Amino acid sequence: MSGISDRKFTIGVDYGTNSVRAIIVDLEDGSEIATAVSPYSGGEAGVLLDAQRPMLARQNPRDYVDGFYRAVAKVIEIAQSTPPGHDRGFTPDGIVGIGVDTTGSTPIPVDESGTPLGMIPEFEHELDAMAWLWKDHTSFAEAAEITEKASRSEDRYLSKCGETYSSEWFWSKILHCRRTNPRVFKAAFSWVELADFIPAFITGNTDPDTLPRGICAAGHKAMFHESWGGLPSEAFLESLDPDLVRLRSHYNGATKTSDQKAGGLCAPVAAKTGLIAGTPVAVGAFDCHMGAIGAGIKPGTLVKAIGTSTCDVMIHPETEPLADIPGLCGIVPGSVMPGYFGLEAGQSAVGDIFNWFVRQMVPEHYFENDAVHENLSQAADKLLPGESGLLCLDWNNGNRTILVDQLLTGLTVGTTLHTTAPEIYRALIEATAFGALTIIKRFEEYGVKVEEVINCGGIAEKSPLIMQIYADVCNRPMKISRSPQTCALGAAICGAVAGGAFKNIQEAQKRMTGVKKTVYKPNPSAVAVYERLYRLYRELHDAFGVDGRKESLYHVMKHLLEIRDTVRKRY
Amino acid sequence: MSGISDRKFTIGVDYGTNSVRAIIVDLEDGSEIATAVSPYSGGEAGVLLDAQRPMLARQNPRDYVDGFYRAVAKVIEIAQSTPPGHDRGFTPDGIVGIGVDTTGSTPIPVDESGTPLGMIPEFEHELDAMAWLWKDHTSFAEAAEITEKASRSEDRYLSKCGETYSSEWFWSKILHCRRTNPRVFKAAFSWVELADFIPAFITGNTDPDTLPRGICAAGHKAMFHESWGGLPSEAFLESLDPDLVRLRSHYNGATKTSDQKAGGLCAPVAAKTGLIAGTPVAVGAFDCHMGAIGAGIKPGTLVKAIGTSTCDVMIHPETEPLADIPGLCGIVPGSVMPGYFGLEAGQSAVGDIFNWFVRQMVPEHYFENDAVHENLSQAADKLLPGESGLLCLDWNNGNRTILVDQLLTGLTVGTTLHTTAPEIYRALIEATAFGALTIIKRFEEYGVKVEEVINCGGIAEKSPLIMQIYADVCNRPMKISRSPQTCALGAAICGAVAGGAFKNIQEAQKRMTGVKKTVYKPNPSAVAVYERLYRLYRELHDAFGVDGRKESLYHVMKHLLEIRDTVRKRY
Repeated sequence: MSGISDRKFTIGVDYGTNSVRAIIVDLEDGSEIATAVSPYSGGEAGVLLDAQRPMLARQNPRDYVDGFYRAVAKVIEIAQSTPPGHDRGFTPDGIVGIGVDTTGSTPIPVDESGTPLGMIPEFEHELDAMAWLWKDHTSFAEAAEITEKASRSEDRYLSKCGETYSSEWFWSKILHCRRTNPRVFKAAFSWVELADFIPAFITGNTDPDTLPRGICAAGHKAMFHESWGGLPSEAFLESLDPDLVRLRSHYNGATKTSDQKAGGLCAPVAAKTGLIAGTPVAVGAFDCHMGAIGAGIKPGTLVKAIGTSTCDVMIHPETEPLADIPGLCGIVPGSVMPGYFGLEAGQSAVGDIFNWFVRQMVPEHYFENDAVHENLSQAADKLLPGESGLLCLDWNNGNRTILVDQLLTGLTVGTTLHTTAPEIYRALIEATAFGALTIIKRFEEYGVKVEEVINCGGIAEKSPLIMQIYADVCNRPMKISRSPQTCALGAAICGAVAGGAFKNIQEAQKRMTGVKKTVYKPNPSAVAVYERLYRLYRELHDAFGVDGRKESLYHVMKHLLEIRDTVRKRY
Repeated sequence: MSGISDRKFTIGVDYGTNSVRAIIVDLEDGSEIATAVSPYSGGEAGVLLDAQRPMLARQNPRDYVDGFYRAVAKVIEIAQSTPPGHDRGFTPDGIVGIGVDTTGSTPIPVDESGTPLGMIPEFEHELDAMAWLWKDHTSFAEAAEITEKASRSEDRYLSKCGETYSSEWFWSKILHCRRTNPRVFKAAFSWVELADFIPAFITGNTDPDTLPRGICAAGHKAMFHESWGGLPSEAFLESLDPDLVRLRSHYNGATKTSDQKAGGLCAPVAAKTGLIAGTPVAVGAFDCHMGAIGAGIKPGTLVKAIGTSTCDVMIHPETEPLADIPGLCGIVPGSVMPGYFGLEAGQSAVGDIFNWFVRQMVPEHYFENDAVHENLSQAADKLLPGESGLLCLDWNNGNRTILVDQLLTGLTVGTTLHTTAPEIYRALIEATAFGALTIIKRFEEYGVKVEEVINCGGIAEKSPLIMQIYADVCNRPMKISRSPQTCALGAAICGAVAGGAFKNIQEAQKRMTGVKKTVYKPNPSAVAVYERLYRLYRELHDAFGVDGRKESLYHVMKHLLEIRDTVRKRY
């Protein structure tokens, strides 16, 4: 066994929607020896809102910087103060690398020095100068315009993002800023994704022209693809707005994968956190792509990160043929790991829907013991599939995959005078499961076989009911990632690889990732009912979500009632 | 001025779903001098339920008899004990007549003596031997069968009931009893509507072969129409079930209108209540038809009784042409008053939907001061039409008019992560208003002009918000009946006319009915938004409610969001 002084560690720093989390991981087995979370201080749970613009969601870049200092300093302190007898032999010079993952697309307008405008006094109270959080949907009109213009372009810009460009993404947001706040737009020398900004900031290279841009953010959100020479052409950007052209020139087109080094930790940041200056920092990537690594992704494995929303990631060897898959958020070589296409799908809201329901619609008595989700789950667990006669569409926050349409909303059909809160709660869970199945089907329709599903994220960790419903609806075993912090673990793995501790990501995964023993297996009788319900879901899905169809929905309610009655008799 | 001893009164006895109410009314001006309510003691708020058969709703006939004794004895006592100085000169011999109205179709199986089976020891614990309350929907399959067979009959049996026979009605229920409980069916010598049973019982003539059957119940629910010789033919009943034929022979086909006398009060009932034996008793009718009289119905006036459900009644001169109106529950000569077709429409649930929502879906803080409906209304009142982006279908209890389909359910579309309980509450109110408008349009499409709307019932009395939304959605002034007890008042009027105090119902109405000063007038800006929302409602209505269509619903959500945004900008 190696001596204490030989122990090696890696740090993962995970920027979520409401807080930043730092973990220190043992290279030996991927176990977490310390974790620290620092909530953002601005706005509502870290998100800046505007009552007049309900689709707006911003964050203060200062929260990102402060969050790094706080979370990393704290995690180092915790790791160092491990009680005697539990000593893991941690010292800061045992850290081989640092990896960073963030939400996205979360572009930040910066000045010529790379300083976020929101950190400059002139703009510090201006929402449009802040980071435009992924879930900001103010730019839906610009997204539609980009989709429309790109669909007519010779370069098939939409072929790698499901034929639809989203309001959650880079150029939509920038164009919306151009259209609605020219002053901020003009002051922005460039726009930098949060995933790129943090590595840039902590390595001391924030120059927009040279800071490394990760292929993950570039490829998935900024329409970057080598087949058309990197970013979209000047002519295309000019067709959106001539002022966008100059932004193209302040963007380092030598994009990098996250197993590569962005630079070494700069001295000022090292001093503030207790890290060693020069520690290798990996190129940043989005949380779910890093999470997929932390969950042990490989070809044939779908990694579902289920939290407020979901991100569904697969990889596919670049050496094998792959069709462009309509409705996927992205197909990007190297976005998860080198040599593989990273395929990203997702649902715009999952936990957010359950939380909304609990906040707005649930009577007092379900809040007993301050455990409303548990109480509702317990009651919902007693219901049989199909018993409530309810069917919901999981579109309270739009639909990301496969429709890529923010202008969709939630629907509940089948309510009677006896419908209860747990029935609706369960129907909402089922709706998100149907949404998940729709994504799996889309992968497989285009030749990407889903041989295994590994779930991670808060909901996968906490809700056996939800995981069982997912198994029953999808008719597949649902596995759970061993680490509860897959994103941070994935970032830590990238930090370790960029720091040279492993040959590649796969080698690191072998040592550091795995799944839990508990696997949720499909129950055949539930599977049979859900097959029927899914057909109805898909009819509603297509009737409300797909333009230009001509089909009647008449029989939907009849079938729901008939299924309900059948189910009641059968069990 | 007439001396005290000349004062004349009439009694109205109103059998609701949960209780029986008796009022004593002054013939001079229709004012109520005393009222008494007696709740039924059986089941849940008077309704017998069966957890295994969720569509079942029965009542114990003993509750009807006991209710009459209790409510009438009490109202006489109250009228007699009027304090000095408020003496209205009431004595029981000043009562010129008694009228009775009831829910319906509420058929009761009776033995050869006319005694309800549920009052006989052998059957007193048997749900199928009880009264089959109007809202019992167990016989939906039989209703479909009757509709199907009647549609193929040479006699156009469905032409007077909107081309669809309902599970709420007489023959559906009897046929369901035949199919599911042959023992009870066999024991039933005849079936008597509650509206006929009470006058029969209190006049001492319960012989099923001779007791007067009111045209209201017969015509609206038992397919009775003189154009095909009264009840449906033996051949038709035989096609449903040969055993139904014998029931036809125990039914007095000389149906009567409610201005006519069923008989004189029998001595035993008089003794139990303090009334005078021999007091004239009018032929019974359904609550809403009597309510229409009490609200002052005349040609061109729609009377809407809005409570847990609605009943919408119009009359049309028999001397003028009238098309058969698809989807109406009934077109029956004389069912409201002689010389006029009584036209009945209605919504299967209105207040029931709001109560369901409050019971199942509303967070604690809206219950402040035990005034949940008021608190939600106050919050909902602050919302602008269209602002929530929500649209509901008001079908939680099926759709009575114009689709006549119990196998429809509620729908809510447009929910987001920010949707609140008051928003849904308002959307549910709007949905019932759209349902109301759909009925008005159907009347007018078939040449029955709606020149005036008079509302009555608990909701019309209590909710200015709902009445204003109805005015805005229907783009018509909403008037409120002066009397809060229009059904009982209408019954009392019929009692007075049957007792000879007035030449006819119209003369009595002139003296005894009227509307309140407060009239809810449409607000043009709200009207404009609701016109747009109604078009969407109608699309959902037709897509989910009408068989065989081929239209896309794709644009519904887009339009709702667009309307929401437009509205927010405009105000």
